[in-house]
Amino acid sequence: MRAMKVNGDRLWARLQELREIGKRESGGVTRFSFTEEERQAKNLVISYMKEAGLQVREDAIGNIIGRREGTDPKSKTVLTGSHIDTVPDGGAFDGALGVLSAIEALQRMEELGEQHVHPIEVIAFTDEEGSRFGFGMIGSRALAGTLREEHLEQSDEHRISIAEAMRAAGYAPERIRDAAKSPAEVKAYVELHIEQGKVLESLDQPVGLVTGIAGPLWLQFTLTGQAGHAGATPMNMRRDPMQTAAELLSFIYNEAKQYPHAVATVGKIRALPGGVNVIPGQVEFTLDVRDINEADRDRLERKIREAAQTVCERNAIELQIDLLQRVAPAPSSPIVREAITEAANLIGLTNLPALISGAGHDGMQFHSLCPIGMIFVRSKDGVSHHPSEFSSKEDCTMGAELLYHTLLQLANRS
Amino acid sequence: MRAMKVNGDRLWARLQELREIGKRESGGVTRFSFTEEERQAKNLVISYMKEAGLQVREDAIGNIIGRREGTDPKSKTVLTGSHIDTVPDGGAFDGALGVLSAIEALQRMEELGEQHVHPIEVIAFTDEEGSRFGFGMIGSRALAGTLREEHLEQSDEHRISIAEAMRAAGYAPERIRDAAKSPAEVKAYVELHIEQGKVLESLDQPVGLVTGIAGPLWLQFTLTGQAGHAGATPMNMRRDPMQTAAELLSFIYNEAKQYPHAVATVGKIRALPGGVNVIPGQVEFTLDVRDINEADRDRLERKIREAAQTVCERNAIELQIDLLQRVAPAPSSPIVREAITEAANLIGLTNLPALISGAGHDGMQFHSLCPIGMIFVRSKDGVSHHPSEFSSKEDCTMGAELLYHTLLQLANRS
Repeated sequence: MRAMKVNGDRLWARLQELREIGKRESGGVTRFSFTEEERQAKNLVISYMKEAGLQVREDAIGNIIGRREGTDPKSKTVLTGSHIDTVPDGGAFDGALGVLSAIEALQRMEELGEQHVHPIEVIAFTDEEGSRFGFGMIGSRALAGTLREEHLEQSDEHRISIAEAMRAAGYAPERIRDAAKSPAEVKAYVELHIEQGKVLESLDQPVGLVTGIAGPLWLQFTLTGQAGHAGATPMNMRRDPMQTAAELLSFIYNEAKQYPHAVATVGKIRALPGGVNVIPGQVEFTLDVRDINEADRDRLERKIREAAQTVCERNAIELQIDLLQRVAPAPSSPIVREAITEAANLIGLTNLPALISGAGHDGMQFHSLCPIGMIFVRSKDGVSHHPSEFSSKEDCTMGAELLYHTLLQLANRS
Repeated sequence: MRAMKVNGDRLWARLQELREIGKRESGGVTRFSFTEEERQAKNLVISYMKEAGLQVREDAIGNIIGRREGTDPKSKTVLTGSHIDTVPDGGAFDGALGVLSAIEALQRMEELGEQHVHPIEVIAFTDEEGSRFGFGMIGSRALAGTLREEHLEQSDEHRISIAEAMRAAGYAPERIRDAAKSPAEVKAYVELHIEQGKVLESLDQPVGLVTGIAGPLWLQFTLTGQAGHAGATPMNMRRDPMQTAAELLSFIYNEAKQYPHAVATVGKIRALPGGVNVIPGQVEFTLDVRDINEADRDRLERKIREAAQTVCERNAIELQIDLLQRVAPAPSSPIVREAITEAANLIGLTNLPALISGAGHDGMQFHSLCPIGMIFVRSKDGVSHHPSEFSSKEDCTMGAELLYHTLLQLANRS
């Protein structure tokens, strides 16, 4: 392995410094948007950007942007970054690692006198998690130009709206359009993030290339049959929706496994009225289906709906399917994937694993703005959104190194 | 069809009179044990027994017993009866029909001067439902000699124990053993009851012969895997207990359908932590399995436990099975079944349907006391424990007529 360009000690020290802001007794971190903790964290990030020699500004939604000029300052900008807000009692790596790795990469370019044609900007996005207002990716939506004023009416648990919270923090909600970038300005977006899953760990690999961000489709199933005494109705006279649900769930899981990237999760289920000795009259369950390939996800959804119809009809069970949400998947762009692969080859990471992101990320907002792509860093035990979230110093350093070369690849391509 | 021995008008009128005691606005009936409503109902039943020419007494647990003497007063007694307590807001037929049909049968024997060798006693049992104290069949347990003083420590929602409620109603809890009968005194027990299911309705038959009372086995299953983000873990890396539960449930239902009388019900299920986008870490569900054949039920239980073990091991899911209760099934005795069949032939009911009772009944308590059997009367839509519980006047009359002849069959056999 060649010597590293990036400074892993500095990156690790900054991760530790940043995690102190909003730290809980549990060791977890809580930084909600437009709070004092978030302001402190932004100020710390600004200080790092300045140390890195970047031109720093804050846009209308509170995104912190640090720019390293290109040899052609008028050419399209390469964007990188992540977020510094957290879920309640979350980890120290989710979001923070992407911002600090990008700053580290640009600081090393500065220190090493590395030139690049296109300007590079690192962005710490406002409120990716959505923990405060139940509405996330606020900063990236504003940058993509898709954040609308009515979105700012969403409120937190104290009934403070996003707009009110913005004003209290010194921002002007009516100016959010000023944060928008146009496709003419942006060359690509690449983000480094912890995996939040166990694929890299199982492959014994520190980093991976993200092939796309799977968009969630959420359906609610309601199966209605006929309740009755658990003893008084023979099996062949029942209209028991639990029997039908078991059959349908097995179908869903088996079908999802036929697709290369699909995942299907039933996280909530209940039977009504809910007595040990009562045949349920109704069974409700939710289904979360994801795939980076929207055509595959659509096909899987169609197959599930058809099977549900068939199984319920055969068992004389009434079926209702409600759509809770449908988010479009965001496949990674070839140009960014190529840049990451090329960078990996440069630093001797052959056979870089390719994996999908099941969780959502800021880059999803940029599908109409620019090519996107992501680098994942191995998560210990796949744990995230928890105080015990961890990625090793070596893996974080390797991720930053890969990002360093990826940014140069992107910023030097025509 | 021959002319009826019993008086259907009188039976129906008494059913209507009895349902007024404890009647709710809903039209439902609530009569809990050792309450004023129950006392009123017992007094009304005593008055009917006296009209029927029976010797009436009340035993130590409050069972009301009306006796018609046999030509051999020292021979074993044939018992019949049911209960007059109800569930909260219950129906007018559950229990009451069995008591009033038996009184009607004995009253007609009196009016027609019908003789029988063995004495016949009709009993209105105290608290079959268990609605007040969460502990039922109190009267029949006392008669079987299996009610123990510690049972009387069970309390109602006002923390009044059975013993305290008995004292307040004028009974002596320390004398409950006086209510016990010995096998030497009892020839058989036959009970008429509404079906509380839809088998007779589906067969278009007014009455049926019960082949046995299925005892419930209640198991609680806890399947533990690993929770995770619904997007970040590929299908082949999951330890999702919901997938395993779906497989296991399908096995249970399919296996139960292989047995002539078994029923299997999953009435409660939940996934933890219970988020739409979270792979569950744990799934809990209950299983109620019943069969009149205990060997079949044991075999089914063994197969289910084996399958659970196998399926959970294959999917790396931890399995825990807790026994919630295990009640022995009570098959009907040949002597009582033969008497019912013979009686049916006498009144032209050929092809009397044979069916099992999934719900529990007082007769279950008598497995060590005497031969038992039951007659079922068709329930409209299978509904019970509800104000809309209904059996037609014609069906009730046919049931009483069948009981009349059955009692004579039993009371005249050596």
